Amino acid sequence: NLIEGAHDAWSGWLCVLLVGLCTGMVAGGIDIGASWMTDLKFGICPQAFWLNREQCCWSSNETSFDSGNCSQWLTWPEVLGQSRDGAGAYIISYLFYIVLALLFAALSASLVRMFAPYACGSGIPEIKTILSGFIIRGYLGKWTLVIKCVGLILSVSAGLSLGKEGPMVHIACAIGNILSYLFPKYGRNEAKKREILSASAAAGVSVAFGAPIGGVLFSLEEVSYYFPLKTLWRSFFCALIAAFILRSINPFGNEHSVLFYVEYNKPWIFFELIPFIGLGIIGGIIATIFIKANLYWCRYRKYSKLGQYPVTEVLVVTVMTAIIAYPNPYTRMNTSQLIYLLFSQCGISNSDNLCDYNRNFTDVNSAIEIAAAGPGVYKAIWLLILALILKLIMTIFTFGMKVPCGLFIPSLCLGAIVGRIVGIGMEQLAYNYPKNWLFSGECSTGDDCITPGLYAMVGAAAVLGGVTRMTVSLVVIMFELTGGVRYIVPLMAAAMASKWVGDALGRQGIYDAHIALNGYPFLDSKDEFQHTSLAADVMQPKRNETLSVITQDSMTVDDIEALLKETEHNGYPVVVSRESQYLVGFVLRRDLNLAIANAKRMADGICGQSIVLFTSGNPPQTLGPPPLKLKKILDMAPITITDQTPMETVVDMFRKLGLRQTLVTHNGRLLGVITKKDVLRHIKQMDNEDPNSVLFN
Amino acid sequence: NLIEGAHDAWSGWLCVLLVGLCTGMVAGGIDIGASWMTDLKFGICPQAFWLNREQCCWSSNETSFDSGNCSQWLTWPEVLGQSRDGAGAYIISYLFYIVLALLFAALSASLVRMFAPYACGSGIPEIKTILSGFIIRGYLGKWTLVIKCVGLILSVSAGLSLGKEGPMVHIACAIGNILSYLFPKYGRNEAKKREILSASAAAGVSVAFGAPIGGVLFSLEEVSYYFPLKTLWRSFFCALIAAFILRSINPFGNEHSVLFYVEYNKPWIFFELIPFIGLGIIGGIIATIFIKANLYWCRYRKYSKLGQYPVTEVLVVTVMTAIIAYPNPYTRMNTSQLIYLLFSQCGISNSDNLCDYNRNFTDVNSAIEIAAAGPGVYKAIWLLILALILKLIMTIFTFGMKVPCGLFIPSLCLGAIVGRIVGIGMEQLAYNYPKNWLFSGECSTGDDCITPGLYAMVGAAAVLGGVTRMTVSLVVIMFELTGGVRYIVPLMAAAMASKWVGDALGRQGIYDAHIALNGYPFLDSKDEFQHTSLAADVMQPKRNETLSVITQDSMTVDDIEALLKETEHNGYPVVVSRESQYLVGFVLRRDLNLAIANAKRMADGICGQSIVLFTSGNPPQTLGPPPLKLKKILDMAPITITDQTPMETVVDMFRKLGLRQTLVTHNGRLLGVITKKDVLRHIKQMDNEDPNSVLFN
Repeated sequence: NLIEGAHDAWSGWLCVLLVGLCTGMVAGGIDIGASWMTDLKFGICPQAFWLNREQCCWSSNETSFDSGNCSQWLTWPEVLGQSRDGAGAYIISYLFYIVLALLFAALSASLVRMFAPYACGSGIPEIKTILSGFIIRGYLGKWTLVIKCVGLILSVSAGLSLGKEGPMVHIACAIGNILSYLFPKYGRNEAKKREILSASAAAGVSVAFGAPIGGVLFSLEEVSYYFPLKTLWRSFFCALIAAFILRSINPFGNEHSVLFYVEYNKPWIFFELIPFIGLGIIGGIIATIFIKANLYWCRYRKYSKLGQYPVTEVLVVTVMTAIIAYPNPYTRMNTSQLIYLLFSQCGISNSDNLCDYNRNFTDVNSAIEIAAAGPGVYKAIWLLILALILKLIMTIFTFGMKVPCGLFIPSLCLGAIVGRIVGIGMEQLAYNYPKNWLFSGECSTGDDCITPGLYAMVGAAAVLGGVTRMTVSLVVIMFELTGGVRYIVPLMAAAMASKWVGDALGRQGIYDAHIALNGYPFLDSKDEFQHTSLAADVMQPKRNETLSVITQDSMTVDDIEALLKETEHNGYPVVVSRESQYLVGFVLRRDLNLAIANAKRMADGICGQSIVLFTSGNPPQTLGPPPLKLKKILDMAPITITDQTPMETVVDMFRKLGLRQTLVTHNGRLLGVITKKDVLRHIKQMDNEDPNSVLFN
Repeated sequence: NLIEGAHDAWSGWLCVLLVGLCTGMVAGGIDIGASWMTDLKFGICPQAFWLNREQCCWSSNETSFDSGNCSQWLTWPEVLGQSRDGAGAYIISYLFYIVLALLFAALSASLVRMFAPYACGSGIPEIKTILSGFIIRGYLGKWTLVIKCVGLILSVSAGLSLGKEGPMVHIACAIGNILSYLFPKYGRNEAKKREILSASAAAGVSVAFGAPIGGVLFSLEEVSYYFPLKTLWRSFFCALIAAFILRSINPFGNEHSVLFYVEYNKPWIFFELIPFIGLGIIGGIIATIFIKANLYWCRYRKYSKLGQYPVTEVLVVTVMTAIIAYPNPYTRMNTSQLIYLLFSQCGISNSDNLCDYNRNFTDVNSAIEIAAAGPGVYKAIWLLILALILKLIMTIFTFGMKVPCGLFIPSLCLGAIVGRIVGIGMEQLAYNYPKNWLFSGECSTGDDCITPGLYAMVGAAAVLGGVTRMTVSLVVIMFELTGGVRYIVPLMAAAMASKWVGDALGRQGIYDAHIALNGYPFLDSKDEFQHTSLAADVMQPKRNETLSVITQDSMTVDDIEALLKETEHNGYPVVVSRESQYLVGFVLRRDLNLAIANAKRMADGICGQSIVLFTSGNPPQTLGPPPLKLKKILDMAPITITDQTPMETVVDMFRKLGLRQTLVTHNGRLLGVITKKDVLRHIKQMDNEDPNSVLFN
C-alpha cells in the first residue's frame, strides 16, 4: 500500500523521466541516421560504411582537408574508379544524388502511405488540437512513431526542403503517449495524459534546438492549450533530461546538441536596431508570402485529383528539388549546415566563399579587422539569392506533402540568407564610410564592428517568427543557440516587427491556418472574442425546433431508444417533466446505450415498456414491468449558464474549463444546449468565414 | 477616431514600455543610492562626497590598491585625523558603523510608520493576493512607491540582513499600477490592470537579477494567479526594456546589471551531482528551519505587545546586527558583495583569504592548477561558519519587521556560504586523493577540476528554492547569472532536492506561509483539492438557516432596505417567488444601495411602499405608488452550479474563472450561495486548520 502510494506520487516524475530519456535517444538516432544518409548521397566510407563523412575523416590522420573531404572518404565517382574532379565525375555525382534522393523519398512516402498515414507533415497543428481536448485515435500510436522516425530520416536525407525539428515534437508526444500507458494514473485519464503530452512537446523542441528553456516556453506558448503551472517544473525536467541525453550521445561530434550553435565576440551597436527591424519587416513579408502560397497549394491539393497521388507528388517534387539544388553548392549541402555557415563568423578556419575578404589572419586570438569583400563574397551573394528563391518555392510545395516534414529549418534558412546578405551590405557600408557618425563610435578602431552572422540569425528569427507567430519561445530558443544575453534585444526587435507585419498582412500563423484548413475543432485560447452576442443566439435548438430531452421519471425504454435512433447528439439533458423543463442533469449517449444494452442482457424483467427512472424514488405508477433505474449514469452537476450570458463569458468558460457542452437555462428552465461545435461555428460566422468548415467528430 | 483606435490598440504596449523604462531607472537609482550609503558607513570621498568608494578610487591613478581602498577615499578615522589602522581607528570605525546603521534604520522605520505602512516587508505575498483578485487599496499607490524606494535604500544601507531584490517586485508593480491610470483601458478595468501588474512583476525580477527571462517565468510561476498567454510577450518586452535601461545606467560599473554575475571556465563532473544533491538537501533543511522560526516569531509579534513598537524593534535588531556583524569581515561587507565573493573563482586578482592557496600564478591565461588550501582558507571557513549562524538568526528576526525588506539576498547568502564550504572540501579531497577513481578522469591533468564557486551558486539556489519554493524561474534566474547552459543540470538537481525536502518538512513556502499568517483570501492555484465533498456541504445557508433572497416582483423598497440592514452579504440572488425559488439573477449590494438612494433622490413618486421590479413587465397590482424598476442592475447571467457538483470542480471554477461567488441550485431551484470565503474556509477545515483565520474584507 505504501509502495502504491509512493508509486502514485512519483509516477508523474518517473513518466517524464522516461519520456525525456527516450526522446533524447530517439532524437540522437534520428540525427545520426539523417547525417549518415545525407552523406550517402555524395559518397561512402569504404573502411566503415556506417560512418558519415566527418566521422570517416576523423579516423584519418590528415590534419588539413579541403571542405571536409579526406582521402578516406570516397565520393561515388571515386568508388566507380573515376577521378574526384572533372566533368564525368560531376555527372556521375549528379546522377547518384538524384537517384538516391528519389529512392529515399519514395521509401519515405510509401512507408507513410502504407503503414501510418498520420506520420506525415509536421504534426504540430494536430498536437495543438489534441491538447485542446480533441481526440484523434492513433495519431500518437506506436506505428505513427516508428514510421515518423524512419520517414523523417529518409525525407531529410532526400534533400527535400524540410526540417526534422517540427516533427520532433510529434515524435516526442507519441513517445509520451505510449509511455503514459505504463502509468494508469496518466494513461486512463485524458486530462492527466495531456500534462504528459505538454512535457513531451517541451522535450521535443528541447532536443530539436538544444534549448530546454525554449522548449518549455514553446510548449507553454504555442502547443499547450491549458498549461497548469504544476506541470511547468515537470516539463522543464523532461526537456532537460532529453537535452542532456542527446548531448551525451553527441550526434554532431561537438559539445552542443545542435549543428548551428554559434558564439559571437562582438556586441551590436545601437543604430543596428534599424537594419534589425528592417529584417523583421522583410521576414514578415516573406513569411506571409509563404503562408498564403502554401495554403493556396494545400487547398488545391485537397480539392483536386492531386490529393489522390501522394507518392507521385513526392517523387516529382524530389526530382525537381534535386535537379535544381545540386548545381548550387548552398542548396546542395544540408540545410542545417547552410544555416550554420550563414550564422557563423568569418574566422581563420572558415574557407567558404562567403569569407573571401581581403585580409590576412596573423593570429587566432587577434581581433578580426574590417575589410573589403573579395570576389568570392559577391559570387556567394548571387548563389545565395538563387538559393533563397529556390528554397522559398520548393518549401511552398513541400510543406503539406505526405511525408514527415518540418518547417523550422526551411524558415530559418530563408531568413538566414536574407539576413546574411543584409549583414554583408552593412559591413561593407561600414568599411567604405568608416568616418560616418553612425559607424565612427565602434568601427573607428579598424576592428570588424558588424557581424554578418548575427544579421543572419536575426533574419532567421524574423522569418520563423512570421511563419509560426512564436514570440517569447522563439527569442529564447535563438538566445539559447548563441548563449549570449546581449543578443536578446536584436532578436526581440526583429521578432516583434515580423509578427506585427505578419498579423497585419494575414491573420493566422501557419499552424493555425492548417488547423482551419483541416477543420479541426480548435478553440483558440489567444484570440479575444469581441462580439456582443448572447448564449440565446447560439444555443441549439433554434426557434421552431424542439429540444431533445429525457424526463426523469416518465419515459420508457422504447421512448429512449427511439430518441437515440432519431437524434445524433452526444448527450441528453434530463428534466423534471416535459412541461416544466426544470433541469435535473445530463446523460451521455454512450452511457445510455451501454446501460440499456446491459439491462436487456441481464433480463430481470426490463422490457421496452419499462419506465426509465433517473430519480432515487419509485415510479408514480406501480403497475407494469419493473423500472430501469439509471441514476448512477446521470451527471447531476452539468455546467449551466443562463440565456442572457454574453458569449464572451461562454467562450471563456469553454476554454478555461475545457467544456464539450453547456446547458442553457432561463429561470431554472432548460432552454437549450451549446456544444463546442456551436461555439466554433458561431466564431467563424462572426468572423465572416464559412461555419461549415468545422469538422464533425 | 483613427488615432483613438490606434491608441487603444497600442496603449498596452506603450504602458509596458513606460513601466519598463521607469522600473529600470528607479532600480538604477536604488542601486546607486544603496551602494553609496553602504560605503558611507565606512568613510567618505572628500573631493566628491556623492561618489562611493569604488567610484572615488577610479578618479585616483593608483593602479593597485588593497581591497578597494585608495588614498582618495578617507575612512572615518582618517577624516577625524587618526591613522587608518590601529586600535583607536578600529573603535572609531566600529562606532561610526553602528551609529550610522542606527540612523539609517531609524529613518527607514519612521518613514514607513509615518507615511506608508504598506511599504514594509517584501510585498510579494500581497502582490500574489492582489493578482488573485483581491483589492488592497493604496497598496500600490504613489506614497507606498516613494517610501518603499527611500526606505529600501536606507534599510539596505543600515546593514540589516535583508535584500533589495524582493521589494523591487513591489516597486515595479506600484509603478505599473500608477502608470496604468494613464491608459483608461487598463486603469478602469481591474482584470486588465492585472495584466500590466504581471508584466511589472516580471520587470521587477528582471532588474533585480538582470534576468529578463527569469523575471517572466517568476511572474508566471510565482506571482501571477492567472497568466493569459497574450500577456507573455508583453511581459517579456517589459522585462527586457527594464533590464536594458538598468544596464545602460550601469550602476555597478561593469557591463552587467547585477553585482554577482560570474563566469566559470570549468565544466562539472558527473559524480559531482552527489554533492550538489546533498547541498539541495541541506538547503531544504536550512530553509525549513528559517521558515518555521520566522513564522513563529512573526506570530509572536502579531499577538504580543511587540507589534506596537515597530520602530523600537527595528532599532534593537539593527544595533544587534551592527555590533555582531562588524568584527567579522564577511558580515561587515555588503551581502551582495559577499555573495559575489563566494560565487567567484579564485583568480589572479582575487586577494581574499578564501583564495589563499599554495600556488603561484604565472600567467592570466594559464589554467588554474589544483592546490592545497593555505591557512587563510581555513580561517575564512571559520569566519564563514560564524557568518552563516549570524545571518540565519538575524534574518529570522529581520524578515517581517516594519521596514522594506527582501528575502532573496539573505537566502542566497546562506546557501552560498554552505556551498562554498562544501566546495572547498570537495576541492581538497580531489587534491589529496587525485588517484581516486572519482577524480581521476578530470583531475588527473593537475588543473583545478572542482570549482568551489559553482558549489556556492548551487547552494544558494538550494536555500532560495527551499525558502520560496520557486522552481523553473529559480533555475533560469541562476542560469542567467552564469550565462552557461551547462550549469543548468546541477542547479536543477539542487533545486529539486531542496523543494522536495522542503515540501516534506513543511507544507508551505515563505510567501504562502505569510499569506496564511495575514489571512489574505488567496486561493492557491497550485494545490490540488483532493477531498470528495459536494457543493451542498459548503454552501450557505446551512440547515436551519434561511437564505436571504429578493423576489423579482413582490418586495417593496422597505423590505429590501430592511434586508440590506439585517444582512451583510455582498449580493443577493433574485428569484421568481419565495415559494418556487426559481433563480432569475443576482444583484450586488452596492448597486442596490446606489439605485435605491438615487430613486429616492429623484423622487418621482418612489416611496417605501413601492414595489421593486426586476422584470420588464408591470407589477401584478396596479394600485399604490409607482414601482421601482431595477432590471438594469440585475446580473442575468450569474454562474450557477448544482448542489451535487463536487467541490473539486467548484474550486476549479473559482480559480479559473476568478469568481467571487456562485449560486447553488437543485432542479432549477435556488438552494444557496458559495462565496470565495466559504471555499477558503472549507479548504482550511479540510486541511485541519483554523477556518476563522481567513480575513474578512
